[in-house]
This record gives sequence, structure tokens and C-alpha cells, in this order.
Amino acid sequence: MPPSNLRPVDPARIRFTGGFWADRIGLVRDVTVPALLRRLDEEGWLETLAFDRAPAPLVRPVQASGLSMQHFFDSDIGKWIEAASLAMLAGGRDGRLEERIDAIAERYAAGQMPDGYLNSWFIRREPGRRWTNLRDWHEMYSLGHLVEGAVAYTRATGKRRLLEVVSRAVDHAIATFGPLPSQRRGYDAHAEMELAMVRLHDLTGDPRHLAFARYLVDERGRMPSYFDEEARARGQDPADYHYKTYAYSQAHKPVREQAEVVGHAVRATYLYAAMADLARADGDAALAAACGRLFDRLVSRQLYVTGGIGPSADNEGFTREYDLPNATAYAETCAAIGLGLFAHRLDSLALHGRHADIVETVLFNGALAGLSADGEHFFYDNVLESAGQHRRWRWHYCPCCATNIARFMAGAGQFVCSAGSDTVAVHQYASCEADLDVGGRPVRLVQATDYPWDGTVRLRLVPDTPRRVALLLRVPGWSRSATLTVDGQAVDAGPLTQDGYCRIDRHWSGGEEVVLRLAMLVERLHAHPAVAADAGRQALRRGPVVYCVEECDVGMDPRRIRLPADAALGPRFDPDLPGGGAVVVEGTALAAVDEDWSGLYRTEPTRLATCALRAVPYYLWANRAEGAMAVWLPQA
Amino acid sequence: MPPSNLRPVDPARIRFTGGFWADRIGLVRDVTVPALLRRLDEEGWLETLAFDRAPAPLVRPVQASGLSMQHFFDSDIGKWIEAASLAMLAGGRDGRLEERIDAIAERYAAGQMPDGYLNSWFIRREPGRRWTNLRDWHEMYSLGHLVEGAVAYTRATGKRRLLEVVSRAVDHAIATFGPLPSQRRGYDAHAEMELAMVRLHDLTGDPRHLAFARYLVDERGRMPSYFDEEARARGQDPADYHYKTYAYSQAHKPVREQAEVVGHAVRATYLYAAMADLARADGDAALAAACGRLFDRLVSRQLYVTGGIGPSADNEGFTREYDLPNATAYAETCAAIGLGLFAHRLDSLALHGRHADIVETVLFNGALAGLSADGEHFFYDNVLESAGQHRRWRWHYCPCCATNIARFMAGAGQFVCSAGSDTVAVHQYASCEADLDVGGRPVRLVQATDYPWDGTVRLRLVPDTPRRVALLLRVPGWSRSATLTVDGQAVDAGPLTQDGYCRIDRHWSGGEEVVLRLAMLVERLHAHPAVAADAGRQALRRGPVVYCVEECDVGMDPRRIRLPADAALGPRFDPDLPGGGAVVVEGTALAAVDEDWSGLYRTEPTRLATCALRAVPYYLWANRAEGAMAVWLPQA
Repeated sequence: MPPSNLRPVDPARIRFTGGFWADRIGLVRDVTVPALLRRLDEEGWLETLAFDRAPAPLVRPVQASGLSMQHFFDSDIGKWIEAASLAMLAGGRDGRLEERIDAIAERYAAGQMPDGYLNSWFIRREPGRRWTNLRDWHEMYSLGHLVEGAVAYTRATGKRRLLEVVSRAVDHAIATFGPLPSQRRGYDAHAEMELAMVRLHDLTGDPRHLAFARYLVDERGRMPSYFDEEARARGQDPADYHYKTYAYSQAHKPVREQAEVVGHAVRATYLYAAMADLARADGDAALAAACGRLFDRLVSRQLYVTGGIGPSADNEGFTREYDLPNATAYAETCAAIGLGLFAHRLDSLALHGRHADIVETVLFNGALAGLSADGEHFFYDNVLESAGQHRRWRWHYCPCCATNIARFMAGAGQFVCSAGSDTVAVHQYASCEADLDVGGRPVRLVQATDYPWDGTVRLRLVPDTPRRVALLLRVPGWSRSATLTVDGQAVDAGPLTQDGYCRIDRHWSGGEEVVLRLAMLVERLHAHPAVAADAGRQALRRGPVVYCVEECDVGMDPRRIRLPADAALGPRFDPDLPGGGAVVVEGTALAAVDEDWSGLYRTEPTRLATCALRAVPYYLWANRAEGAMAVWLPQA
Repeated sequence: MPPSNLRPVDPARIRFTGGFWADRIGLVRDVTVPALLRRLDEEGWLETLAFDRAPAPLVRPVQASGLSMQHFFDSDIGKWIEAASLAMLAGGRDGRLEERIDAIAERYAAGQMPDGYLNSWFIRREPGRRWTNLRDWHEMYSLGHLVEGAVAYTRATGKRRLLEVVSRAVDHAIATFGPLPSQRRGYDAHAEMELAMVRLHDLTGDPRHLAFARYLVDERGRMPSYFDEEARARGQDPADYHYKTYAYSQAHKPVREQAEVVGHAVRATYLYAAMADLARADGDAALAAACGRLFDRLVSRQLYVTGGIGPSADNEGFTREYDLPNATAYAETCAAIGLGLFAHRLDSLALHGRHADIVETVLFNGALAGLSADGEHFFYDNVLESAGQHRRWRWHYCPCCATNIARFMAGAGQFVCSAGSDTVAVHQYASCEADLDVGGRPVRLVQATDYPWDGTVRLRLVPDTPRRVALLLRVPGWSRSATLTVDGQAVDAGPLTQDGYCRIDRHWSGGEEVVLRLAMLVERLHAHPAVAADAGRQALRRGPVVYCVEECDVGMDPRRIRLPADAALGPRFDPDLPGGGAVVVEGTALAAVDEDWSGLYRTEPTRLATCALRAVPYYLWANRAEGAMAVWLPQA
């Protein structure tokens, strides 16, 4: 497809009108956002913004390694503000919440250094060390999240105080870092400032903001490395770098030359997302090509079936291609979110259904698993198999995933649809109303569906006056059979479908009902033969939802189950599951029994006995009872 | 069986006369021992014994964590001396080697502190910190290995200089630590001194040595913990202990109360082995019961099929029962060795074939894999599945396994047989001659066999004068069919066999030939259903040898192979394999092919194509070419 002129829907202009996402955004608004605020209070994070007082002892001491997560807790305050703001955009303003955020803004304003520098850790605790370690200390990353929070807060409330404070800090960063002789040629090892500058530019239109994002992206990976120079300036040997290679931060070579997906998975996806933003803003073909190359590589060789990425805890990131272990999967919630942000932005370069397929996979599986059904417990890493030792946590020494999943879910509306001059593209199916600007004139998109439990979606396009608009409906990659009616007339979707979207180009008066029916079958997935961890195994999926088997549902360790080739498996909606119920997959399978076992190894095959199989959506796991879990089941 | 009065053969009185172990001990003597000496020179370890000079800069700097392996490198000097001495016992004295060891002894003598304290790290580099951290710094562990080295050297050469030096250090330790008010109630968190004291007592007969071992074993796990007191004395908070629990060192409760196998696997097995030594020496039923309980638990729930133990790198040790991941198996070479030492000692408490079964499994698989076929490259951790990233190393920042596998293999003779007042028990089959003391009179045991490639063993018992002796022959747990002839007459082994040993109780004049024929079949092993990592998989074993499939033998990643239930698999001796050839297992299997694959997941099953299967002994892996490896193959 040619370069896309599509722009995602403004989060302020879309409302979920019931169903899956309305429920979840309600949960984030009603439970997660207030719970996270309590955590920030309890952990002393907001106290640290009392710049007029001497800092209190740390609630959590800095580790001997010197790598303190607390250097970057401004980032989580920023993500929390963004989550709260998006929740207000979705569900209405909230005076008490605004009071707290306004107070935070005032604290930042009071503590900001005269030159604009803003970071609560360094200002209060280590002022002499500011901007001395962009490799490890995340100062731009932290500021970037504060910027994203401030932009969202301004959009939600119109208030500009926090925006002014962070904009001064941005001005200071722009003055400090850049290619001029008077500047330092630094960039943050953890991408995020790049994304924030694009977001800020969207609000301000200030070309300096976009230019700074461009500088940061272009500077990354230039040799000799700024991180080397900076280490020497600190009196350290660059060779002592803990992670040994700047590939950890995708800073081992210029971004346009990168063809392999390496390093820390969150850093990678944030960077790639920013590259996509810039490629669009600048019409930069080389950058767009790099984005496409990296996306293809990532999703074809390094992606868990859940949308999780980054298998290893060692580098919180990527290892060898096809290395996707289940029991030790790191698959950080933030990394799945980053993948969603990246995939979503690719539609601004060229529309293709595989981008929204990935967003969908992440939304319903790899990211959503990071938040509990009760809205206040979290997973950082997301294994695909557990002996039962995994527990969702209330708080974490590095709680990045908690604030991130809150802002990601609260902002889910951004992924639903986009509009061009004469086009409306629907990427995600959910009951909602979206007010779109299509070529300067308003068009309302209305969806009604029980997605993801049912594949029937009823849509209407309501222009202000009847007009011709091309409605593009994504036909998901998992769909085997899509049927379409327009005003009750069957339409053959096949010939209309290209690159994953079915194009209905016609006049709309507003009364026409489009009905898309996606057959949702319980399917068995097989992994590529190079994925050793899944050899001889199958995973269950229905529609966009990947399933797992939990011990509490089958009364035994689900890792004993073997799936016969002919096992009949069927869906059933279970209203008693947390979060408003869910479709479960039920049937009969076999289970390895140990009654006749004595030792650990023997030559006689293990006896298999018939057992009832019940699988629940992966995102629901570890919500009801402690126990083992498995996504991939060996075939019988 | 009643308590055993069997004593293992004196390593000085057994000679391998050709075949598998003769070859390997020759390799250790000719290659490994000299290579390790070169490494000790290159790494500056022997320089550190120049107590008359200021210490040179460290070849490898101490890590920021403060946990330096170099605190305990005396232990590796001790293990190297033990290996060199055992190699001399097996193959004859060696003047040049003795010169080096004598020089080391003189250096230790010159550096020893006036009160007898001996540790090259603390004397030269941190004299003020000696005996201040038994929890982390391994001073007794290091001394223990020096003692074992000195005992072996004395046995091999008759020289006593090193023995005198270490004995003075032992006297100092005994004076320093103990239950008297004038003493400190300390013990080393890493068991080893206990084993060394028993070994020293065997040579000296000094009851103080046995008493010190007894003190150390009894003191372990007593609350309040000495390690807490010691941490406070250093001004540290015991709660800051890196490993969080003293179960890491099996010091969480008194050893007689321990029923679960926990913590660091080498520490555990060294401790258990010492407990077995003391249970025998003291007739301590409670200690013997604890040994039996721990052994049963370990081998029935925590043992890799290779004899490896301790799945986790985090604690270099045990996790949950049945947690035996293949690709991330830690299974430290030293831990397999420790298991061998422990299992072997249990026969001194009660003879049962399962003890020598485990020793055999370790000898031919989990431990032997730690040494390369060229004799100078090593594995520390021993995975059972690899994507190809594993390489044997020439040296390691913690080279404990290199010196340990050298001494273990050089001392393999100790495991072969043992003798009581009227009994000779044969535990391991290998061509050898052993001169045993049977009730005060000499009996020679002669074995001739091509074990482990052929299950036929010809044995003779040659007493000085004809006499009645019970010959006990182990019938391995893996054996499905054992036939026996004595002087050509078939004997029904079944009724004679109890607890894994076939008892031939008769007069021997010396000319009788006993022939034991153990059918060696290629067998498929299945793991207990609770071992999730092996669900739906099979491993190949023939006799005591466990097999693996290497990429270089099958021309593809072996993790793509599926084993059909009806695949015919047969053995063939391949003389071209390193180390004198080996029996390989060959046949036909299926392999997952990816020609028709595009993405990463799909609903169509993967196509399987017929492929040639070739499996080699696990111990041989990573000797020929880089590449992937798998022990457990999914069934087709």
C-alpha cells in the first residue's frame, strides 16, 4: 500500500459504550489509578517531590550494585498522570484527582532548578551528578514520561501548569544536548524522550520539539559512543559497562543501519515507535524501511504467541532468534506495551492488517495479562508456563509495568480507528462511538459487538451530510471466514480485501448498517520448527484470545495434560470468571498419571488417562488461585 | 541389608588395566594435570603463594559485589595436588610434578602464620579479616581441600612436608573453633573441612580429626546462627545476606532434622557425604537415617537423567522438586561429583545397588561431561539441551569444576570395589586388578570387560590360598537381563540377587572365571509425569550411558527431531569418536521441516519428514563442532 495518510483517533473523541474495553477502562479509572496513587504515597515517591525539605531516608535502600530504580521514579509519576488523564478523557473529569495532580505540578515547579533541569532524584539527592550518566540513569527517559503525562493532562483538563514546568525542562534539555559545539552530543540510553517530543509537538506544533526527537534518533549509535566519553569523564572504564554492549540500548550502530532486534525489549520498542513517528513526520524513507525491517524480524522470529517479547531476564530483552522459552519467559508487560505502540504507529507509514493484528494480540493477551482482574495487582514478567510459583504483586521495586499498563489500557481507544481525507479505517473491534475528522468534516463511527467473545460486529458511519467515504475494516489474520453485509445485502468481502483490510467505498447517509461476521473457531496453534520450546506442542486460540490451562480448572498440574489430535474442543461463555466472564474452551484430553510410578525415570511409557480439559484466556491467569499454568500443551 | 562392614579399595591398590577408565585416567595424568598447572601459573595463582613478596595486582579484579572467587583458590591448588597425586598412584610417580608440589609445600610453609593459620588470600591481602566471615569466604573449605591434597600426596609419595604444614593449620582451626568457652562456635558455610577431617583421620588415626568433623557437622544449623553473630560482629545486618536463607548452605536447621534437599548443590552433597562418613565412624543411626532420607529424596525427585543435580544458576542448587529444566540446567560438574561421593559412601552404611547405580550414572554422564575429550576444556554447568551457544572453556573465573573433575576421574578406582571380612563387592565394572584386604588376608580381584560398550564382564577372585569369600556383583538398575556363569556353569542369578547385588558365596582357588553378561539394550526413558520439562519426551540410554543428539551428527538442530514410537534404534561402535570411540545409537526418526513455513505460528501442523537419527553419549557433546544439542526428544 502507498504511504498512509491516516491519523489515529484523538483519545478525547472516542468513547467505549459497553463491553470488554469499557469494563476494563472503568476498572483502571475506578481501581487502578487510585490504587497506584496510594502506592506512590506509601512508598514515599510523592514525598520526594517536597523539594523544600531535606529528603527523607529512602523507603527502599539503593542496592549495592548502585543501580537504583529510584533514579527514575519521575517516569512512573509521569505514567500515572498520563493514566489518570486518559481515564478522565474516557470517563469524565475528577476534581479530587486533579487536586493531587495540580499539587504534584506545583511541587515540580517549586523544585525545578533555575536553568530548567527537572529530576526529583538528582535535584534532591545527587545534584552534582545530573547529566553525568545518560547510559544508566534515565534522566531523559524520566522527563519524557513527565512530558507525556503533562500533555495528556492538558488534553484532559485544559490546565497548563505542569505542561509549562516540563516544557521549561525540555527547553533546558534541548539547550544542553545537540550537535552544536556548545552542546553535548548525548542521548538517553533508554528511548522515551523521542516519543515524548513527538507527543509534545502534536500539542505545541513547536518545530524544536520535533527537531530534538530527530536529533536523539539520529545521534543514537554514532561512534565514538557518547557513553564511552561520558564514562571516561566519570573516571570509569567504558569496558566495565555492566551490560557489556550498547546493543542493550540499540546504541551499537546508527538506527537506520539496524536490521536485528537486540537488547532491552522496552528500549527497543520505544525507540522503534519513535522512529516510526519521525519517519512519518519527515517522510523519511530510510527510517521507515528500518522500521519495517525491524518489525518483520521481530514478529516473525522473536514473538511469543501472546504478543510478549524479550525472553531473557538477564538483559530484560532479546536473545537468539526463535529462543522463546515458556517457563522462563521474561516477556515484560512494558515490552508488550512497547510493541503495541510500535505496531500501531506503522499504520501511519503504510496500512497493513498485520500491524493491528499485533496490537490486538498485545491488547488481549501479552499486555492485559500484566493487570489483575481486581485492577490492583500486576505482573512484570509474563511466563507462559508456571509450576505455580508466580504471584501477581501489589508493588515492585521497579513498578514501571504497573503505571504503564494503566496508561496503556486507559488509552486503548487510540488503537481503534483512524481517519484520512476520505477514509475511515477500523483496526480494533469494540463497542464504541468515535467522532472522526475525515477530510475536515465530521464522521461518526459507531460499533456494537460482543468482541472478543463473539465475532459479529455491527458498524455505522454517520457523516454530517451524506458523502462518499471508504470504510476499511480489518480482517484479522486469525480469521478463516469473514462475511459481510451492508444494509442486509451480502457483500463478497474477498475481492474487497487487500493487505488485511476490506474496503467498502460508497456513499453513506448514516442509516446503513454494516455487519462483519468473523467466525471464531477454537484453533490449535503450532510454532515454527525452530522454536524448540514449543516442539511437539500446541496452543489454543479463539479469535484474538490465547488460552492457557490453570491448575484450579483441571484439578492437577496442567503440564501433565496431553492434547490428542482428535480431541473435540468447544467454547462456552462462563459468566463467573473475573472481569465479567469470558469464553472458556472445554473438551476432553489425556493426562499423565503417576499412580504406577516409583522413581524418576523408567522405560515403560507413562500411562495417560482421560481428563476434562478447561482452558481460560491467558490474560486471566493467576487471578483465582495459586497453581501451575501452561499455554503450550504437548500433543498426545 | 544390615549395616555394611565394607571398606572401599585403597586407591593405591587398584590399577585399571585398559579400556574406558584406563584411557581417561591416562588423559588426566598426561594432559589435564599438566594443563591445569599451566593455568594456575598463567592466572597468577601460584605467584600468590610467594609470601615473601608483596602481592602482585590481581589477574582478575575482585567484582564490585565483593564476592571474589579468589578468596578460595587454595581449594583449587589442593584439588590439583590431589588430582596429581591420584594420577601418580594410578600411573607411577613423576619427579617433575613432585618438584612443583614440593615447592608449593615450601611456599605454604614459609607463609604460614605463627599460630598455624593458612590461607594465601587472607595472609597476603587481607590479614585483618581472617576468620571473620565463615558464611561467605570459604577459609575452612579451602583448607579442607589442601588437606585432601596433602593426604593424597603423602599416600602417593610418602612425603610429609605438605601434610605437616596443613596439619598445623588444622590444629589452629581445631583450637579456634569448637564448643568451649574459649572457642568460637563457627563452621564453614561450604562443607568440605568435614570430609577432609575424615580423610586425614584415615591417615593419622588422630581422634581429634574425627572429633572436629563431628563438631562441624553437629554445629551446623544450630540456632541462633553463628552466621548472624558473625555478620553483626562485622557491623552488618544478617538480613542483608545475599542468599537470604541459610538453607543455601544447609545451615537452616540441625542436619539430623533435615529431610529436604535444599540450597547449593555442591555444599549439600559434600555435607551429606561427610554425614555418611561420620554415621559410619560413629555408628550414628540418626545421622545414617538422615543420609538415607536425603538420598532418597534427591534421587527420586531432583535428579537429572544424567546424574546432574541442582537445576538453578541463582543458588547454584536446588529449587522445587521435579523442577528439572533442560535448556537452563545448571547441574554443576562439582555437584555431580559431590553426588558421586555421597552415594559411594552410603555403601559403607548399608549396601544397596542403587548407590553404585548413581555413582555409575555420574561417572559416565553428569560428571564426565565436565571434561573435554582433549582433556583440557571444561564445563561448569551441564545443560541437557542447547541452541548451540555453549562452549567448553579453558579457564573460568571460578574453576572449581576443572580441578574437581581431574581429581574425581583420577580417583575413579575408589568406586570400583570394596571388601569386608569375608566379602568382596564389585560396584563398578572396568578392566582392572585390585589387591584387597579381605579379613586380614589378600585377595586379588581381576576384571576384564569392554564396559560400558559391552555388558560382558569376566571376573576372577584370587586369594593367597583357597578360601571361602562371598563375591557380590552389582546388577545395575538399568539391567533387564543378567546371566551368570561360574567356570562355564550357568548360574541362575535371580535367586542370588538381593538389593541390587548377586551374591556368589563359595570357595575360590583363583582359577575360576565368573562371567556376568548384562544385556545392553538401547532404551527409551520416560520421566515422571511431574517433570514438566520432559513431558511427552524420551531420552535414550544404553547400559549406563545416556545419549544426546548433536547438530553435527544430524545436519540440523536436533531439537526439531521427533521420535516415533516404532522407530528402530540400534547401537554401533564408532571408532572415530573422540576418546577412543564410543557406541552410537542410530536409526530413523522424523524431523519438523520449515520449507512451507512463513510466520511464527500457524494452525496447520508442522510437516514431519523422515530423517536419520544418530545419538552419541552425552559426555561426548560439544567436543567436535559447535551446534545445538538435545537429550530429551519429543515423541512423534
